[in-house]
Amino acid sequence: MSKELCRNRLQKTRELMEEQGVDLFLVSPSPNLRYLSGYSLPGDERLFLLVLPVQGDPFVLANALYRAQAEIMPVSDYVFWSDGQDPLAILKAELERRGFADGKTALEPSLPSLFSVPLSRTLPKTEFVLGSPLTAPQRQYKDSAELDLIRRASALADHVLEALISRKEYWVGKTERDFAGELAAQMRSAAFETSASIVAVGANAAVPHHVTGDAVIQQGKGLLIDFWGSFEGYFTDCSRTFFVGEPDQEFETVYKIVLEAHCAAEAKARPGNLLGDVDAAARSVIEGYGYGKYFTHRTGHGIGMEAHEGPPAALGETTPVKPGMVFSIEPGIYLPGKLGVRIENLVAIGEQGPEVLHHYPRELKRL
Amino acid sequence: MSKELCRNRLQKTRELMEEQGVDLFLVSPSPNLRYLSGYSLPGDERLFLLVLPVQGDPFVLANALYRAQAEIMPVSDYVFWSDGQDPLAILKAELERRGFADGKTALEPSLPSLFSVPLSRTLPKTEFVLGSPLTAPQRQYKDSAELDLIRRASALADHVLEALISRKEYWVGKTERDFAGELAAQMRSAAFETSASIVAVGANAAVPHHVTGDAVIQQGKGLLIDFWGSFEGYFTDCSRTFFVGEPDQEFETVYKIVLEAHCAAEAKARPGNLLGDVDAAARSVIEGYGYGKYFTHRTGHGIGMEAHEGPPAALGETTPVKPGMVFSIEPGIYLPGKLGVRIENLVAIGEQGPEVLHHYPRELKRL
Repeated sequence: MSKELCRNRLQKTRELMEEQGVDLFLVSPSPNLRYLSGYSLPGDERLFLLVLPVQGDPFVLANALYRAQAEIMPVSDYVFWSDGQDPLAILKAELERRGFADGKTALEPSLPSLFSVPLSRTLPKTEFVLGSPLTAPQRQYKDSAELDLIRRASALADHVLEALISRKEYWVGKTERDFAGELAAQMRSAAFETSASIVAVGANAAVPHHVTGDAVIQQGKGLLIDFWGSFEGYFTDCSRTFFVGEPDQEFETVYKIVLEAHCAAEAKARPGNLLGDVDAAARSVIEGYGYGKYFTHRTGHGIGMEAHEGPPAALGETTPVKPGMVFSIEPGIYLPGKLGVRIENLVAIGEQGPEVLHHYPRELKRL
Repeated sequence: MSKELCRNRLQKTRELMEEQGVDLFLVSPSPNLRYLSGYSLPGDERLFLLVLPVQGDPFVLANALYRAQAEIMPVSDYVFWSDGQDPLAILKAELERRGFADGKTALEPSLPSLFSVPLSRTLPKTEFVLGSPLTAPQRQYKDSAELDLIRRASALADHVLEALISRKEYWVGKTERDFAGELAAQMRSAAFETSASIVAVGANAAVPHHVTGDAVIQQGKGLLIDFWGSFEGYFTDCSRTFFVGEPDQEFETVYKIVLEAHCAAEAKARPGNLLGDVDAAARSVIEGYGYGKYFTHRTGHGIGMEAHEGPPAALGETTPVKPGMVFSIEPGIYLPGKLGVRIENLVAIGEQGPEVLHHYPRELKRL
């Protein structure tokens, strides 16, 4: 990440702090810290914070063992603590010395209670708020470099899915878990840093967040695959539902409805509409066929440095669809004990409408 | 995990709640939840809680999409919320209905501020404390099944290290990052679910938490490898320092001192001593040779379902060493700009003394 980009993001964050009356933002290792600094640090039990005041110099508070990590942060001021010392007491003294104490303080949303509970004891007069409104308004619009990474991640995911589905030895007679393991291995080979999946055979697909298990992929059953992963810090997310052999009438009908809902939502994914309209488009198709109660989740979610980011494409969501947004479109129908179908693509919003980031066919494929 | 073991752990947790005056324990997906339920769930932005009152029936609060995950929890009562609803408002109503509201409430230490900040708004009269004292006293003593997993993980890690070091093509002329990548690949092949490492060449090893980078493993340089990972939910952690070619006098001297410190600490790792004695033994050896200021961290840390668990083998730590504990012994000497040496084994404490879980030789190996 260029120094200029880093400076711009920090500057924008401070403007949002000013607008929101926030005096201090404590950023622990997280996608937000990566967004603001360009570096991904793993958090652990030793408190590490980028301390960003609305005015004045930011500094890093870190254990002395993490000097190297502190020094790559976009600040020129460091406060180190050592094993055996209380980092929160040191933070408090530092904030008092700099005149930053007792202000309205935003916390990185992933900051564990391990730190936030004692922090609220150490700074009893401080009002704590969530830091999400300081970064989400920036992160929800991707710049061209970010979009390019999500585009590449999605193309790679398409290839991985194609490689697995096109070769029978990867799925004939395999369990959900076997398949998920091979999928994970191929995602790693494709240079994904992390990946995860839901693999659901037959009636298991009726559970939207099924726990991948021992069911065997076999003739006469549906196969739902939902998989996601991060590539150079940016996520892709894709779902497809297949059928092994010839589906019955009900499966085929449900698939057609989900596909129609998917296309209807995609058509609304353009500037001028609200995110709620995208959801409503998918939902009204499914409701129109009488399956409304079997579509149990939102139509989509934002995505970027996290697999799920706000704002969602959910009923009543009033955020306008704007260029630079990337979100999933993933309607589904789940008939308990019978079947489940979900079709998920990512779309990137341009001035003219959606760019669909997945190219794996959406039509029902018989395996 | 057997139902009986699960029941025992929940029961013990409630006894600790009673002793500590805690009315309610909110457990989100985490190693603690795995410890109490037997299941590892990935947490996300949809609140999922095992709600454990000191008296009365526990229940699970979950998004309706996570019904399957809720139903494997060791409770028989579930409260589901749906996308678009506020899970904290539902939690509050449920706690009031059951008469659990406004009590002293312990939070899972990894619960993100995303939930804990709005929770403290939703329940303004509630005193929040950390849940660590409800599980740490149990988790610090491993039962034989847990110990067996750490033993197996450690033996596997020894094999991975041996496989890498014994074949020159894995390290000659490779960068730290190449080596770390191969190490990660072999850890995965050895069935580790997660792994990570610090690989540091030459003067980089003087930074105890060096960020693995582009330095090349080559003649005349030290090579410090610290790697850890989890196997069926339990961690191992091991460090060795090698030298490529013939070390100079200073490197050899420092290595000997660190090894002597390591052995001294190991000798104290037995019932009858305090964890602080283990640290003091290593520290006094290093101080005796005049290198005290270059040993900048504690001697060791507990380990189990997390790579770092309390209590630490640190200066002044008054927790007695007892059978069932597993911790690292990892003294080091770090000469800035010059070299770093660390030697780390895990030890499991038995009635008669330490069982060393790593069998890779501790003596200086010239590559």
